[in-house]
Amino acid sequence: MTVLPDQPVLRALLAALGDDGVLAGSRLMAARLRDASGAPSAVAPLALLRPRSVEEVSAALAICHAHDQPVVVQGGLTGLAAGANPLGGEIALSLARLEGIEDIDAEEGTMTLRAGTILQTAQDAARAAGFLLPIDYGARGSAHIGGAIATNAGGTRVIGHGTVRQNVLGLECVLMDGTVLSHLVKFTKDNSGYNLAQLFIGSEGTLGVVTRAVLRLKPLPPPAETALCALPDFPAALKLLRSARAKTTLSAFEVMWQDHFLLCGGRGLFSPDPDIALLIECEGGGLTDLLADAYSEGIVRDALIASSQAEADRFWDIRHMDHLETPLTHEINLDVSLPVVAMDGFARRCREDLGALDPDLRSYVFGHVGDGNLHVVVTLPRADPALVHRVEETAYGLVRALGGSISAEHGIGRLKRDWLDHSRSAAEIAAMRAIKAALDPKGLLNPGKII
Amino acid sequence: MTVLPDQPVLRALLAALGDDGVLAGSRLMAARLRDASGAPSAVAPLALLRPRSVEEVSAALAICHAHDQPVVVQGGLTGLAAGANPLGGEIALSLARLEGIEDIDAEEGTMTLRAGTILQTAQDAARAAGFLLPIDYGARGSAHIGGAIATNAGGTRVIGHGTVRQNVLGLECVLMDGTVLSHLVKFTKDNSGYNLAQLFIGSEGTLGVVTRAVLRLKPLPPPAETALCALPDFPAALKLLRSARAKTTLSAFEVMWQDHFLLCGGRGLFSPDPDIALLIECEGGGLTDLLADAYSEGIVRDALIASSQAEADRFWDIRHMDHLETPLTHEINLDVSLPVVAMDGFARRCREDLGALDPDLRSYVFGHVGDGNLHVVVTLPRADPALVHRVEETAYGLVRALGGSISAEHGIGRLKRDWLDHSRSAAEIAAMRAIKAALDPKGLLNPGKII
Ligand SMILES: Cc1cc2nc3c(=O)[nH]c(=O)nc-3n(C[C@H](O)[C@H](O)[C@H](O)COP(=O)(O)OP(=O)(O)OC[C@H]3O[C@@H](n4cnc5c(N)ncnc54)[C@H](O)[C@@H]3O)c2cc1C
Ligand SMILES: Cc1cc2nc3c(=O)[nH]c(=O)nc-3n(C[C@H](O)[C@H](O)[C@H](O)COP(=O)(O)OP(=O)(O)OC[C@H]3O[C@@H](n4cnc5c(N)ncnc54)[C@H](O)[C@@H]3O)c2cc1C
Repeated sequence: MTVLPDQPVLRALLAALGDDGVLAGSRLMAARLRDASGAPSAVAPLALLRPRSVEEVSAALAICHAHDQPVVVQGGLTGLAAGANPLGGEIALSLARLEGIEDIDAEEGTMTLRAGTILQTAQDAARAAGFLLPIDYGARGSAHIGGAIATNAGGTRVIGHGTVRQNVLGLECVLMDGTVLSHLVKFTKDNSGYNLAQLFIGSEGTLGVVTRAVLRLKPLPPPAETALCALPDFPAALKLLRSARAKTTLSAFEVMWQDHFLLCGGRGLFSPDPDIALLIECEGGGLTDLLADAYSEGIVRDALIASSQAEADRFWDIRHMDHLETPLTHEINLDVSLPVVAMDGFARRCREDLGALDPDLRSYVFGHVGDGNLHVVVTLPRADPALVHRVEETAYGLVRALGGSISAEHGIGRLKRDWLDHSRSAAEIAAMRAIKAALDPKGLLNPGKII
Repeated sequence: MTVLPDQPVLRALLAALGDDGVLAGSRLMAARLRDASGAPSAVAPLALLRPRSVEEVSAALAICHAHDQPVVVQGGLTGLAAGANPLGGEIALSLARLEGIEDIDAEEGTMTLRAGTILQTAQDAARAAGFLLPIDYGARGSAHIGGAIATNAGGTRVIGHGTVRQNVLGLECVLMDGTVLSHLVKFTKDNSGYNLAQLFIGSEGTLGVVTRAVLRLKPLPPPAETALCALPDFPAALKLLRSARAKTTLSAFEVMWQDHFLLCGGRGLFSPDPDIALLIECEGGGLTDLLADAYSEGIVRDALIASSQAEADRFWDIRHMDHLETPLTHEINLDVSLPVVAMDGFARRCREDLGALDPDLRSYVFGHVGDGNLHVVVTLPRADPALVHRVEETAYGLVRALGGSISAEHGIGRLKRDWLDHSRSAAEIAAMRAIKAALDPKGLLNPGKII
């Protein structure tokens, strides 16, 4: 039995959610309470709520609202922006027990599921029913569907199927005052007033708590073809991207600048080591012809086409940084969007300007170029908050100058909050605040995140 | 020179927009001022503003805001929900002179254009640059891009490319107080705070005035194959839809119930006349094999595959109701979404229940089944507002009972405003009102529309 600090809000919550619905004290200490960002900002929440139903989420939020009690929303805690981390004074609300698939509808091609369902569980269930759930990324074994929706997660299938945003048909959310907004439709077209779902998607738990969703399922794709290519330069990658889009069904187009490729095991695979390496994947054929044409046009210097799944997996290991030449130290993961024409300049400027901050700093650039998304992995010689700040200042300054976005897929959360003005104008941020105040007038839901 | 009623707001607008930027009096009378819905609610506005730039839109709105002057936003006036119609006391703001394509970016695959650009102009420019702008519908020669965005228009390419919502990357809007929210990004992934663009899309001019947008362009598709098919029943259509999705790249899947098919020139094309007819279009092959398999499984009874563009056009004429056996009188166009499994029941109940309202009433059902969208054309024996109301009550009552949407693509505007509660809960409508109040606290922008 939980021994609670004698606070009225906790007593009311205990009455509503029951003993195992409210963790505090030693039971709280045992729980994981912060996300995967490694952000230093996290502290322990006052308690951890574990509602099992939409009604319990609604009741819990209404109680907190009545007591002016701030709440931080937690999914699978795989986020990389510290959005799920308590900052001080919050009660945490976890969706982990509000889980399970409610319905796979083969006629509509939809899956209805609860927010706490693990992404991989949902993927497996879709596959078992003969469908593809086209949302996938490394954290699939822990991330919740609710977290994926709250962060509008991207991942490896975006080039073919869009981000989470394009794959949500219906959504149910609970506002801070306990109001349930339920619109679990299964169809594509719906112009009945404002699209609240699209506003909640990507709002990182600051506007409402996602409780259920209807996702779109796709037919299972034909087997993929995968190749690793050596390219003469970045403009060649853009030429190849355009013809690949026209001639094949692209499912991945991952560009690695040389530093990244060599760090991750690419050294010696091609001779000479290429300035730009590319992992390309197509669904249903056409890759060999595409590469043969590209080779004859000088766009591709050399290519390895995977002849087995094991070989394709080895190519992906390079892109996923699974085997490194040298281990990463004190790493920072930047995740930015840019116009594709600006990417190469950004990659080179980043290397130079970041290198100038500290001689022992290293940076590695790769990206989902077809989605306009680059990742920069920066490793620092020591834990040094001032250096971290200078890295962010330098990189986000470049992003701002190039008209990019400081967050392509990980979200703003707490970590990027103070950089938001590098991508959004004061007028836009004011509009966001107005919307936040309209839906959460007391400012109790996930305070200190995004804005 | 415009002779204006001596009102301070009009004098200020004249000073800001110049003589040909403010039409009033006789020059106003000559202008088209209402949309294509034929709704009886429209009256003349006090004046018609014709700003030529984003700055002029901003200045005009700021002046109206300062004078508590309501504004109705007008695009190409092809809307079918009376959303652009003045209801009394508004000044109309037309985007017609804020037009033109600013940029086609072949590297990014994007087009940046002003709101008043005609859809067809944008389509033609995309094609000339070697791209497809995947937004298309019958009103292409008059509808503005801004209007398409404000109504999240659908049309014939939705099954392959989504509605307008899925094709907008960046958006610029002006709020009622003149604040410009500009986020003209060219990339897919952007999780830098709330996605304001997705909120404005489909908000029918009630939250902000769309001034510019970045649209996604696609590679030009391979030539389409088109067929007209006779199906034994509606479940066969659903079976065919599923296998077509898996085996081909569908670009249209339009189901016509018998009444519609016969009215529109389908009589005698198949023997016997089918209960369900289907127009199917695929991009890049596979249609003949698909239909041969479907025939052998009994899913398709008979099929005509177009052997020329002229023949394909004749199939589309049937679907588009271009040549009718009997002319339509006093027609009402219903545009609803439903789960596909509920569609056939809806079509049959609609026919029965609407027929019971008046023996001379006729109804014809067809739909973009792959998008969950049905259209019902109802013809009445006489102009009779009470009968119109009973038709809407009956049809939207069925939609509500089946969990559908009362507006799939045309929007709510004024015409469906009083039925909004048939698709959205009181809590959702309250949330919409809160958002409206946050962005337009005085309630001056397109009042009386949606909510
Ligand atoms: C190994 C690894 C690989 C990754 N790869 C990718 C990738 O390729 N693409 C990508 O986009 N992201 C990636 N991520 C980060 C990604 O954002 C998260 O994995 C995931 O989307 C968050 O889900 P979660 O359930 O873990 O949410 P959490 O980390 O618990 O929370 C994330 C945010 O969402 C909010 N939230 C969570 N659940 C809800 C809910 N039900 N209602 C409202 N708000 C909620 C939280 O308050 C927080 O702001 C990766 C992370 C890891 C660790
Ligand atoms: C023959 C025909 C066929 C059609 N076919 C389809 C179809 O297949 N699919 C479909 O979805 N629709 C269809 N429509 C209706 C469709 O909604 C409109 O054609 C179009 O999307 C509206 O554009 P518009 O510029 O004419 O807008 P208007 O009619 O002028 O306005 C429509 C709404 O948008 C607002 N608005 C207009 N411009 C702006 C702006 N710049 N900023 C903010 N608000 C603005 C108005 O206030 C109004 O509420 C059809 C219409 C016709 C006449």
